Amino acid sequence: MGELAFNHKSKDGKARTGTLTLKHGCIQTPALMPVATKATVKALTVEDLNELNTQFLICNTYHLMLQPTEDVIAKFGGLHQFMNWNKPLITDSGGFQAFSLGLGKEHAVGKMFFPEEHHTNSKLKGKSIAKISDKGISFQSIYDMSYQVLTPERSIRIQEKLGADLILVLDECTSPLSDKTYTTNSLKRTHQWAKECLQLHQTNQAIAGIVQGGHWQDLREKSAQYLASLNFDSYAIGGSLGKSKNDMHHVLEWVIPYLPENKPRHLLGIGVVEDIFESVERGVDLFDCVSPTRIARSGYPHIRPPSGTKKNKYRYKLKSQKYKDDSRPLDTHCDCKVCKTYSRAYIHHLLKTEELIGYTLISYHNLYFMLHLMNEIRTAINESRFKQLKKEWIG
Amino acid sequence: MGELAFNHKSKDGKARTGTLTLKHGCIQTPALMPVATKATVKALTVEDLNELNTQFLICNTYHLMLQPTEDVIAKFGGLHQFMNWNKPLITDSGGFQAFSLGLGKEHAVGKMFFPEEHHTNSKLKGKSIAKISDKGISFQSIYDMSYQVLTPERSIRIQEKLGADLILVLDECTSPLSDKTYTTNSLKRTHQWAKECLQLHQTNQAIAGIVQGGHWQDLREKSAQYLASLNFDSYAIGGSLGKSKNDMHHVLEWVIPYLPENKPRHLLGIGVVEDIFESVERGVDLFDCVSPTRIARSGYPHIRPPSGTKKNKYRYKLKSQKYKDDSRPLDTHCDCKVCKTYSRAYIHHLLKTEELIGYTLISYHNLYFMLHLMNEIRTAINESRFKQLKKEWIG
Repeated sequence: MGELAFNHKSKDGKARTGTLTLKHGCIQTPALMPVATKATVKALTVEDLNELNTQFLICNTYHLMLQPTEDVIAKFGGLHQFMNWNKPLITDSGGFQAFSLGLGKEHAVGKMFFPEEHHTNSKLKGKSIAKISDKGISFQSIYDMSYQVLTPERSIRIQEKLGADLILVLDECTSPLSDKTYTTNSLKRTHQWAKECLQLHQTNQAIAGIVQGGHWQDLREKSAQYLASLNFDSYAIGGSLGKSKNDMHHVLEWVIPYLPENKPRHLLGIGVVEDIFESVERGVDLFDCVSPTRIARSGYPHIRPPSGTKKNKYRYKLKSQKYKDDSRPLDTHCDCKVCKTYSRAYIHHLLKTEELIGYTLISYHNLYFMLHLMNEIRTAINESRFKQLKKEWIG
Repeated sequence: MGELAFNHKSKDGKARTGTLTLKHGCIQTPALMPVATKATVKALTVEDLNELNTQFLICNTYHLMLQPTEDVIAKFGGLHQFMNWNKPLITDSGGFQAFSLGLGKEHAVGKMFFPEEHHTNSKLKGKSIAKISDKGISFQSIYDMSYQVLTPERSIRIQEKLGADLILVLDECTSPLSDKTYTTNSLKRTHQWAKECLQLHQTNQAIAGIVQGGHWQDLREKSAQYLASLNFDSYAIGGSLGKSKNDMHHVLEWVIPYLPENKPRHLLGIGVVEDIFESVERGVDLFDCVSPTRIARSGYPHIRPPSGTKKNKYRYKLKSQKYKDDSRPLDTHCDCKVCKTYSRAYIHHLLKTEELIGYTLISYHNLYFMLHLMNEIRTAINESRFKQLKKEWIG
């Protein structure tokens, strides 16, 4: 068992608040961790993240093993020192990349598959550059096209060198288009790897198991039961999450009853506003999502209700000409540093001229927006009015 | 006459210190103004600039008239409000773009022409998209290829709307490859425009004349004399500055004796370490240069002596593999925030992965480096040891 403590505070239905204590500090849950894929949250400095009261970050084993490599990071004493981040850190195992570079490319899908929006995902389509076998994941580096094999043991050894507070077992993230036979066989492998990772793990880093099983109830329940029996420090719920938001909700409803009440639950890679409310309501504690900073770099600032709605995804296209002389802040209901200082017109101008700092300013605002929302959710749960807050936000 | 006061403090040879007071505050001279071409210093926020004790900035009429347009900026009350900068600001007139989009493209040269390095400038080569006549500069917008004419009157009216503390007259910057006949005729026009701009100017913004005349002593002296007779608030020295560093030094030696002692002298667009020392020594007070932030975005951090030398241009290529696990700060002799916090290895990694924040961190360091150097230069002049400092830096 690694260094991890999780204490509950309040419950409001299945939604719950708590304090997760890891080696580098405490996290108030439910919480969203910004994604620092390559040891940096895109377009933001560590100073920005501290100013935003960011509680923790997640980094990516797959990217870091290739560049700068785990050995360079180990030379600095780990990721915390390398990137100058002194609060809790999580690393994922690289398993998700087996999907995003493999079946995800072949099927041209993400963790969820929405038939009605499929045309929007055609940019994902491509030749698989990852192969999976019982031994591990073979892939070509996107940096130099060198051949690499990520086994359960290699993933653990790399994550030990990276030195995050909480690490993840290697798993296979299946595709929402994988059939039940494929998913059943894959799950067997994922379970075998989870057990191996736990046995191989030698440091006092906390370690999380990952529940898989696609969108089949029996597989998801079996996976949750099996992983619970292995007594991990924490539990993650991985994709595929089905073909609709309802499928995702079902997966949570099937899995969570089998996970230990006193361990944190992390829904991997999910985190837009609507999904957070629905998942917190079903008992999820931890989220990670690239969306706030990714949409920022595409020029979409987040907005709160009443301007922000489920329909407009709580965002708008700032590059639109109608904002060229708009003197309002990015969000009229926000009190972040960017909203106190700059107008939409100015940041619209920075986007039009492709000035880097435009991406920084919107990223800062969007993270503030999401972290502030998580704070509101925690307060609402503590005050037994989570359902009311959810209604105010998503109707 | 606009709002401008210039008080001398010390002299050390021809090098001098002073206080330049503009509407939005005081500037200790000699001083370097970072370039905020499109109302932002690339990759840095206004907060960063304030933290760096940046005294003033220069913005670009040509770029801003096209995007977001002077009318949008005027709607906000001017550039200060639009970009949230409350210290002094200068705008240039757009004259330099007549050169960089016109003869500069045809001749494939910058303000100076070094025959031995000419191959490096081939990237400038292209078809002219600016035509000059006695009426003004006709050009096509680089944004939408629309046809524009910048006359002396239009340049002044735009700069009045932009609302900087100090504005510049419209001039023609000739090419170092222009012959004497061309330069003589051009100078006649530049003088006519200077007079017109002064007459047309209606606000209490300070206004600077620009000395031209290429690298011919009689033309440069004539230009300095003529502009001095017009009694501008400030004087700028424009390109072309010849075919060698010596040519540039001669231009300064010809011009400066004819400029009023009690007015600031601004060497336009110049500002690498060596040039600053040579120019301050000859009596220049103000500099603007994109170099510190431009080389930052190419991955070159500045370094002080003894590592930094005239030969290596006080910089190094951080993307080189030899820095991949270098735990030293960007400059081992620097105490800026970036050098106190991050290693070369980390920022090398950010460059390799093209993470935006890498450009921000090096830009911050490079500006700190240059502004700190200007501070050292002022102290050295005040303590009558400028020559000693120059020797320590450039030998």
